Amino acid sequence: MRPTVVIVGAGFGGLRAARALRRAPVDVILVDRNNYHLFQPLLYQVATAGLEPEEIAKPVRAILRRQKNLEFRLLEVTGIDFAARRVLTSDRPIPYDYLILAVGARTSYFGLEDVARHGFGLKDIPDAVRLRNHVLECFERGMLEADPERRRARLTFVVVGGGPTGVEMAGALSELVRLVLVKDYPRLNLKDVRILLLEAGDRLLAAMPPRLSEAAARTLWKKHVEVRHGATVSGYDGTSARLTSGEIIPAHTLVWAAGVQVADLVGRLGVPTARLGRVPVEPTLQLAAHPEVFVVGDAAYLEAGHNPLPMMAPPAMQMGETAATSIRRLIDGKAAVPFRYRDPGTLATIGRNAAVARIRGISFTGFPAWVVWLVVHIIQLIGFRNKLFVLINWAWDYFFYDRAVRLITWWDRHPNPESRP
Amino acid sequence: MRPTVVIVGAGFGGLRAARALRRAPVDVILVDRNNYHLFQPLLYQVATAGLEPEEIAKPVRAILRRQKNLEFRLLEVTGIDFAARRVLTSDRPIPYDYLILAVGARTSYFGLEDVARHGFGLKDIPDAVRLRNHVLECFERGMLEADPERRRARLTFVVVGGGPTGVEMAGALSELVRLVLVKDYPRLNLKDVRILLLEAGDRLLAAMPPRLSEAAARTLWKKHVEVRHGATVSGYDGTSARLTSGEIIPAHTLVWAAGVQVADLVGRLGVPTARLGRVPVEPTLQLAAHPEVFVVGDAAYLEAGHNPLPMMAPPAMQMGETAATSIRRLIDGKAAVPFRYRDPGTLATIGRNAAVARIRGISFTGFPAWVVWLVVHIIQLIGFRNKLFVLINWAWDYFFYDRAVRLITWWDRHPNPESRP
Repeated sequence: MRPTVVIVGAGFGGLRAARALRRAPVDVILVDRNNYHLFQPLLYQVATAGLEPEEIAKPVRAILRRQKNLEFRLLEVTGIDFAARRVLTSDRPIPYDYLILAVGARTSYFGLEDVARHGFGLKDIPDAVRLRNHVLECFERGMLEADPERRRARLTFVVVGGGPTGVEMAGALSELVRLVLVKDYPRLNLKDVRILLLEAGDRLLAAMPPRLSEAAARTLWKKHVEVRHGATVSGYDGTSARLTSGEIIPAHTLVWAAGVQVADLVGRLGVPTARLGRVPVEPTLQLAAHPEVFVVGDAAYLEAGHNPLPMMAPPAMQMGETAATSIRRLIDGKAAVPFRYRDPGTLATIGRNAAVARIRGISFTGFPAWVVWLVVHIIQLIGFRNKLFVLINWAWDYFFYDRAVRLITWWDRHPNPESRP
Repeated sequence: MRPTVVIVGAGFGGLRAARALRRAPVDVILVDRNNYHLFQPLLYQVATAGLEPEEIAKPVRAILRRQKNLEFRLLEVTGIDFAARRVLTSDRPIPYDYLILAVGARTSYFGLEDVARHGFGLKDIPDAVRLRNHVLECFERGMLEADPERRRARLTFVVVGGGPTGVEMAGALSELVRLVLVKDYPRLNLKDVRILLLEAGDRLLAAMPPRLSEAAARTLWKKHVEVRHGATVSGYDGTSARLTSGEIIPAHTLVWAAGVQVADLVGRLGVPTARLGRVPVEPTLQLAAHPEVFVVGDAAYLEAGHNPLPMMAPPAMQMGETAATSIRRLIDGKAAVPFRYRDPGTLATIGRNAAVARIRGISFTGFPAWVVWLVVHIIQLIGFRNKLFVLINWAWDYFFYDRAVRLITWWDRHPNPESRP
């Protein structure tokens, strides 16, 4: 009887673990509540009409079709019975011998309920499409607005959070407006459009060297993004943002890229958690109390040097690999191996020919960084078809100064049939 | 002062009229409640995971960007004040000198409210994406279903209506299952999957010669679609369809391609209407009581020979052209011209290498018809980018027996932020 490995989550960590177990003498059951693997780092391009959502996602079954020892189940996981070694789901429970929790993170609004209600997160495809629809709608309605103050409020976009997502979002939004929409709306006065990037700390991209933070801020300023340091949002009602300084910014759009926390499931497991809901793990990624359970990716709390590992794709993928290796070793009666993070560097793009990069300790900016960013992202996208379509899209947009996906698809305005049994 | 032409609707008729007025001495205001023109004839391919919705739609502003005498407004039209010559909208009213109503049609359930609630129409992008999500979900859930009867009900797909949409939908659905999904679900027993095509009349594609109807039915049978003639649906509760014969068909999916009627707006205009809510027009497409108002496309009722013109793209486009010509002539003090329909032929595809066609009185089937279908549809798609992406997609799917867009994007499961002011 082969042991069963259940993997919860088909993100970067879970998918990598599943693949690393393809020749192991185990039955793998991979569970996710979506039927696709999503390449989250390019979500902001969906939100800014550059890519179609289908191009950065791929069905899990298509990815893992040839892996004979794997079964995929589309399920919501509701809990874990660690004592009985069963994953509880919206369907029947799934017994496991080994469990890999790769549940990922969701947007965290730090308790700001009005921001959660009226602002836009950016963690999944529906988030991105909703934001795209909304941004385009702001321009349509702004153009019909006779009152100049109200028009400016409709055309003001506040991006909160100066990490890679916020920086890339603000840059892409500026290019969408100044390279593309300006041609769609001949009567648009660019002075009515404001894009603000609010960072609570004193520099953007805090994980990068200060030189790169400055380069990013400078490039954004050139793209007419108002970068504010030390600016913290305390509330948002859908039409104006309130800062802790008391300042009020009239804006119909607030994109929240300021924080994430571990997916809700983890909070219900009864395991101790650290900051942002992450689960402290042994150096081998095992739970101390349950060595047959591994936690990988955003959900795992582990320090490298003196800092917690970042909640990003590279640690998740490497952890998935390590967990799979350890499970193979445990089955052979050997010990689990400790996780060692190999930092592949960090990258953020700000627009055409503009990016910042730090790879193997070397910082660089501008066109070289932008080319590296392009190549790295194309390589990492899963599936030849997705690579091809993204590449064509990027080439098209680059040469024609276009963003072709400028559709307002009002899913939510159409009556939904009742949910089916 | 140049006269203002208001065009309501950016479908085939409205768009063609707008373009035909590009050099006329008029100001054109084009109004639509969507910001895109949709190529409806390929919607069924979105519903069967073959195409991405963005590939068959293009933003109206992008299409008409270079037309200097045109302004697009994203608005819902709420009524027409014929006496004051104003289009009433969700925003301010728009005065017109000439009006072209090109409002199109929507799905008609002929008063079957439970079918409207639980069945799937196929007239707009949200319809198609919802159907795609649902079909894929039926397979995911079907695979988890232990009870064989319930599993079969989840894997039974009823398509109602033997017109081109129903025939193409049934054929595409069968290929999705038998060429693609069968590889995704190694445990799927194809005997559990049923696809039915129900036609109330005694043959499919009633607008085509009987020989082609028979060819279509034969091809569908080869693809394991159960074609039923003389079968009329009287009710559907989401899990089983009831026929007027009393037969009950357990099925979690019912696609309604059995009828359309003119968009609701027309019913509120106080003009006399004919069958399916269509507006009887003069041979010049003018309203008898308001010669400055033209009705084109699905909304216009006009007979050619003894039959009403079909509610399809070719008459709509030709009518748009004729209305624009007449408006130019009226401005010059000449008379409006009568509409003359030039039938370009009809086509329907049933799957790989299989189609039926009737062009210039010549009927043909099989591979030649399929090639003609491909070429005609690629040519008619608006925009080079859309043509390119659809072509790559079709080539990919043809050679790799794939449908790449197998994503379940549960827009409606995610909480929507409150609608914004």
